[in-house]
Amino acid sequence: MQATRSSAPAKVILFGEHFVVEGQPAIAAAISLRAHVTVEPADTDGILVYSKNLGLLEEYRFAERGAWSGKMLSIAIAAYTAMESLGRKSGVKVTVDSEIPPGSGMGSSAAVAVATTHATFRAFGEEPDLKEVSRIAFEAEKVVHGKPSGIDNTVATYGGVIAYRKGEGFIPLKAELNGVRLVLADSGVPRNTGEMVKRVLELKNTYPSVLEPLYHAAGRLVVEAARRLEEGDYESLGRLMNVNHGFLSAIGVSTLELEKLVYTARRAGALGSKLTGAGGGGFIVALVTAEKEKEVVEALRQLSPRIFSVEISSEGVRKEPL
Amino acid sequence: MQATRSSAPAKVILFGEHFVVEGQPAIAAAISLRAHVTVEPADTDGILVYSKNLGLLEEYRFAERGAWSGKMLSIAIAAYTAMESLGRKSGVKVTVDSEIPPGSGMGSSAAVAVATTHATFRAFGEEPDLKEVSRIAFEAEKVVHGKPSGIDNTVATYGGVIAYRKGEGFIPLKAELNGVRLVLADSGVPRNTGEMVKRVLELKNTYPSVLEPLYHAAGRLVVEAARRLEEGDYESLGRLMNVNHGFLSAIGVSTLELEKLVYTARRAGALGSKLTGAGGGGFIVALVTAEKEKEVVEALRQLSPRIFSVEISSEGVRKEPL
Repeated sequence: MQATRSSAPAKVILFGEHFVVEGQPAIAAAISLRAHVTVEPADTDGILVYSKNLGLLEEYRFAERGAWSGKMLSIAIAAYTAMESLGRKSGVKVTVDSEIPPGSGMGSSAAVAVATTHATFRAFGEEPDLKEVSRIAFEAEKVVHGKPSGIDNTVATYGGVIAYRKGEGFIPLKAELNGVRLVLADSGVPRNTGEMVKRVLELKNTYPSVLEPLYHAAGRLVVEAARRLEEGDYESLGRLMNVNHGFLSAIGVSTLELEKLVYTARRAGALGSKLTGAGGGGFIVALVTAEKEKEVVEALRQLSPRIFSVEISSEGVRKEPL
Repeated sequence: MQATRSSAPAKVILFGEHFVVEGQPAIAAAISLRAHVTVEPADTDGILVYSKNLGLLEEYRFAERGAWSGKMLSIAIAAYTAMESLGRKSGVKVTVDSEIPPGSGMGSSAAVAVATTHATFRAFGEEPDLKEVSRIAFEAEKVVHGKPSGIDNTVATYGGVIAYRKGEGFIPLKAELNGVRLVLADSGVPRNTGEMVKRVLELKNTYPSVLEPLYHAAGRLVVEAARRLEEGDYESLGRLMNVNHGFLSAIGVSTLELEKLVYTARRAGALGSKLTGAGGGGFIVALVTAEKEKEVVEALRQLSPRIFSVEISSEGVRKEPL
């Protein structure tokens, strides 16, 4: 067994959040923020998990497997399940060092689980099978998050841009996005996924005659966006992000803070902008050309406590030098 | 001939603006801001028009009828056409005193034309026929505004809440709206009707597969809103205003200033809020209970140079004491 290091990317939802819950398609992309995980042999009869970000060390002992609990449980489970899948078991230390803001809707925990699984396979001298990496990360996510959609671990594993629909799996899109960047700005208000999903479904059930054609429009928008992505038609992508944002405003998941960010980004020259993820708080995403990046970031900095300017990342999980 | 005074109400679009251009229904309401017009005999061979608001006096001489031009042309034409319809003609002075902000999308010019026509009929001792009043005001509007939809003169004449659809005429709704008010707040940016209508049609023609189901949803929303209006279900009305605003954001007619007002009104306790009219600037409208009115107005005052708190007015054009 040897020390190894792997990394996996964060994701951002570009189109279709919320509407995906009721069977419409959505599009998510891997971005250039990554979670790095080192796995190395350790003198313990279990799994040590250390987070550089949290400054936290936890020990998960093999003998107590049935009773594991802790803040970093999903990481321990990813490493453990990878070992189980190899039929190997020995003491390891998993060290996490992530650029991805946790609790932001960017799939931080899935990226960590994917990188952990990947590094664990490699630590035992096995070439990781990506399908197996994604599956194990999904299992680890399930233990902690209840009902993950599977999009986070898929994007973290394969990278690039992926279309998906509930019950139908994932389709990689041939999207390069050269010369454009994504600017992510935090509204400073925590998102509230559960509450937002509940609120949207209540609205839909109360006014079905209005919301059903809107869901239909949202599905059509994702199909159109997928086509424009593959054509490299960034201007259309931006315009469709704006339309998508209006749909999210219509279903009640936007806020004053999110609107300020979304419209400020557009005014500063973004090709398009929208809230991303569950809403009620959380982040917006703006599509910007390289030339306009600085202006958009500067304008948002007045309003946002946290901004990331990233690229879409074609690379999923990968090995890293130690 | 005798001096008379009439008044007619402003209108606000509650649901369906923009989507109405492509054949979807819309709902407009008369509000408690009124244009007052006095018509009296004058020692002139024509029509004197005096605006108290503008501090402006213009003379339109009968002998130069074919060559009339002026800032208040539509008022002169309304008075002239009313006289023509009666087969009477004599020198009059028309004095306008309006509470309705001009150029705000609230139908200021139609309300003035309706009140002018009404007062002119009465000045000649005739009981005004409302259908004829509305028709004459529409003709006067056409001369100045090109292609009016007919909603402004209809609401100014009949008052109340009116549903309409292009080519299908107007249906009065049995809506009382007791115990709720409309708060109108100016974004401080002039609206730009022509540019906005053009932009929306371009979007629709570029992405028809996305926009067509949205227009469908917008039509359904108006039908639902009409039903809830007649039931007095104010909570639903507010929620549907919010949904409608998202649709308007989706088609690109909102702005940073409008979004701040819309979301601030909701946060301060409005039942719902949306931009009203063409967008790109102009006003928002918020539906508020009497209890929340003060809070909403106070919150908006931080952001808006001009706020009106009004009621829906069941009364259209009416005679007034001199």
